[in-house]
Amino acid sequence: MKASDVSTFFAQPGELDPEDYLELDYLFECHGDPRSAAAALCSEQSTGQWHRVGVDEDLRPRFAAKVLALSVEGQLPAPSCPTTEQVTGEVSVCRITIAHPHGNFGPRIPNLLSAAMGEGVYFVPDIPLIKLLDLRLPTTYLAGFEGPKFGIDGIRDLLQVYDRPIVFGVVKPNIGLPPEPLAELGYQGWLGGLDVVKDDEMLADTAWCPLGRRSALLGEARRQAEVETGVRKGYLANVTDEVDRLCALHDLAVGNGANLLLVNTMTVGLSAVRLLRRHTRVPLIGHFAFIAAASRLPCYGVHTRVINKLQRLAGLDGVIMPGFGKRMGMDEAEVLDGVAACLDPMGAIPRSLPIPGGSEWAGTLEGIYRRIGGVDFGFIPGRGVFGHPMGPGAGAISVRRAWDAIRAGVSLEVQARSSPELRMAIDTFGGGG
Amino acid sequence: MKASDVSTFFAQPGELDPEDYLELDYLFECHGDPRSAAAALCSEQSTGQWHRVGVDEDLRPRFAAKVLALSVEGQLPAPSCPTTEQVTGEVSVCRITIAHPHGNFGPRIPNLLSAAMGEGVYFVPDIPLIKLLDLRLPTTYLAGFEGPKFGIDGIRDLLQVYDRPIVFGVVKPNIGLPPEPLAELGYQGWLGGLDVVKDDEMLADTAWCPLGRRSALLGEARRQAEVETGVRKGYLANVTDEVDRLCALHDLAVGNGANLLLVNTMTVGLSAVRLLRRHTRVPLIGHFAFIAAASRLPCYGVHTRVINKLQRLAGLDGVIMPGFGKRMGMDEAEVLDGVAACLDPMGAIPRSLPIPGGSEWAGTLEGIYRRIGGVDFGFIPGRGVFGHPMGPGAGAISVRRAWDAIRAGVSLEVQARSSPELRMAIDTFGGGG
Repeated sequence: MKASDVSTFFAQPGELDPEDYLELDYLFECHGDPRSAAAALCSEQSTGQWHRVGVDEDLRPRFAAKVLALSVEGQLPAPSCPTTEQVTGEVSVCRITIAHPHGNFGPRIPNLLSAAMGEGVYFVPDIPLIKLLDLRLPTTYLAGFEGPKFGIDGIRDLLQVYDRPIVFGVVKPNIGLPPEPLAELGYQGWLGGLDVVKDDEMLADTAWCPLGRRSALLGEARRQAEVETGVRKGYLANVTDEVDRLCALHDLAVGNGANLLLVNTMTVGLSAVRLLRRHTRVPLIGHFAFIAAASRLPCYGVHTRVINKLQRLAGLDGVIMPGFGKRMGMDEAEVLDGVAACLDPMGAIPRSLPIPGGSEWAGTLEGIYRRIGGVDFGFIPGRGVFGHPMGPGAGAISVRRAWDAIRAGVSLEVQARSSPELRMAIDTFGGGG
Repeated sequence: MKASDVSTFFAQPGELDPEDYLELDYLFECHGDPRSAAAALCSEQSTGQWHRVGVDEDLRPRFAAKVLALSVEGQLPAPSCPTTEQVTGEVSVCRITIAHPHGNFGPRIPNLLSAAMGEGVYFVPDIPLIKLLDLRLPTTYLAGFEGPKFGIDGIRDLLQVYDRPIVFGVVKPNIGLPPEPLAELGYQGWLGGLDVVKDDEMLADTAWCPLGRRSALLGEARRQAEVETGVRKGYLANVTDEVDRLCALHDLAVGNGANLLLVNTMTVGLSAVRLLRRHTRVPLIGHFAFIAAASRLPCYGVHTRVINKLQRLAGLDGVIMPGFGKRMGMDEAEVLDGVAACLDPMGAIPRSLPIPGGSEWAGTLEGIYRRIGGVDFGFIPGRGVFGHPMGPGAGAISVRRAWDAIRAGVSLEVQARSSPELRMAIDTFGGGG
């Protein structure tokens, strides 16, 4: 790119109407002049070759992505991580905000991904490392999306739980059990105080545990638990499957009594979630499987906050994400960013329930509550309920007693004096187990 | 995990029927004992907690993933790349082959992704870095998939081209032109000798270039070019869009004369491609947008060969991938692996056309041909045809003359003596431009 062209990819003050653009924040490492690299990033993700040969035209004014802000944060003697390109030599570490014209593709998630995370991002000359950190969508663009059909409020109405976190339990063993024992385990968990019994994300519609029979038995157990406890219960059935089966599996599972559905978002694709959202009669919860392949390195890929925003945009009523604490190896700020992606204002798009998880048990509830600073989240133990030595009912009780302790302002140890289930949970899981 | 349990995740000789398992190769860096990390990797991606509390059962014999081979390749003072986990300390670099029971989930791509690239892979304790390098699918598993509906042979039959690479041209400018000039550019390219005129992967169904009018004009131009040249021509229309529009856009574009369709695979999702494959009447070509977010680092994510195998499995008749040469920053071996994923035997699944690309022009054709060692590939210039100073027709001619030179065993320079179009291509693009 000629020097005179570089400046054409930098926005002039007042030149752009913010409603016409997505704002994309990237962190990148580049060789050579950062301004040239920034201009190339804008060109590659939008207009590229911006006129026909021999034609006096310039497609950039309307169609080019443009730099809104660029800062060089430092120099490194080499890229901070080896790439397949095996480039060496000094790099500048840069942060950039780009205004990308959404009229180039419209309110379509696959095309948004192609623009913000496509060839024109990860294959820009002299930018060996780049990570999409955030994206902000103007009201005009958000208006093209429906977002969650139920959202947090809908999930609360379904369960009639308004003043505390929603307590999920992931039935364990996660894989290998037929429907009968799964339903029995779920039933015990509900009686103990779980709001929602959840299929593991690995559980599919297999011959040894068909979704039809599983949802029938768990649906029946759920209704029975509602009768016995007098409170509403949720069964979150995993319908992750080929895209052309999603709606049929929805009909099957919901018809049998599942009243929430789980889908492993990035394995079916965000757009398939949007499809299912149009069809669904119950809240949809997304699991984070496959996201980490692109999100876990600080220097490359895409930040989980971006994917969480897109999950909300696609219509997920709840978003399961890797949580706090040592187990998932997440940076605490990143988890909070992911939670904020679910809760922060986003035009008219309803809020999604953030569900951060990873080896939760009664003793981890308070830490999540304090970090998030409110009750609008899902708490999602697995082994912490279904691996409790006194059984799933006791495991669920231990979690509910932990919440009682938080509400009463007493320590878990004090609370455990009146709860053998909580006492046992502390003794079993409290060593970091 | 107890030491006695570690060995239960290592396969004993003769214990496993290969037809019951996927084979997964990972490269990982781990803290502590590699055997323990390997066992944890198997446990986390399959059975996890392998019995109910208080029940004498063991779900591992049927449902556990097991180590087939483990080798420690070296030690590093710290992980080779910083992670969000920010762990430090010595790591062992390991290669592992895991047998994963496909009966756990069945022939479903989203569930395969959840198992081989899900939570149980990227969040295993003491494995901060891991990359899925390869997967091998037994015949019984492959039998659950249809693969490409047309494959290489079908594309060749469509175009009646059997003895040379298929020549694609990506119309440039890629974005911003209305249908009329796009059709005119395509028409010139066809007359010059392109087999297939291709929409850019960034081109969507927008108000300024609706797919309906675009496919009508390009379909008509294609038929006109066939009449004038007497040979078959292809128009590859980009139908990348929300999943619930794919089949309708197929019907629209194909009805108007598009005879191949483009989809940005990972942005709509592999499973949506499988859905479209069931519906399609024309060959489907996949573009690599969004894959690199998870594939470009040697130490983390997933290797492109895996995604290419899955694209073929999902039914793509052609796979556009980042190609050889400096422009895309790809390791040559990785491109060849991606090509092999399209061409190597894969049960009864037909071959897909590999289409490696990145700033191709007449002068890069021979290098691709020599590296691949055959004619079964697609050649996909953009600017090398549509940025040719004498116009797209001349650009296409320059590519065809380059193939004539290869066939005749003469140099490009010699061939250019009788081809001003090739001469101009060399002068324009030959400096690495």
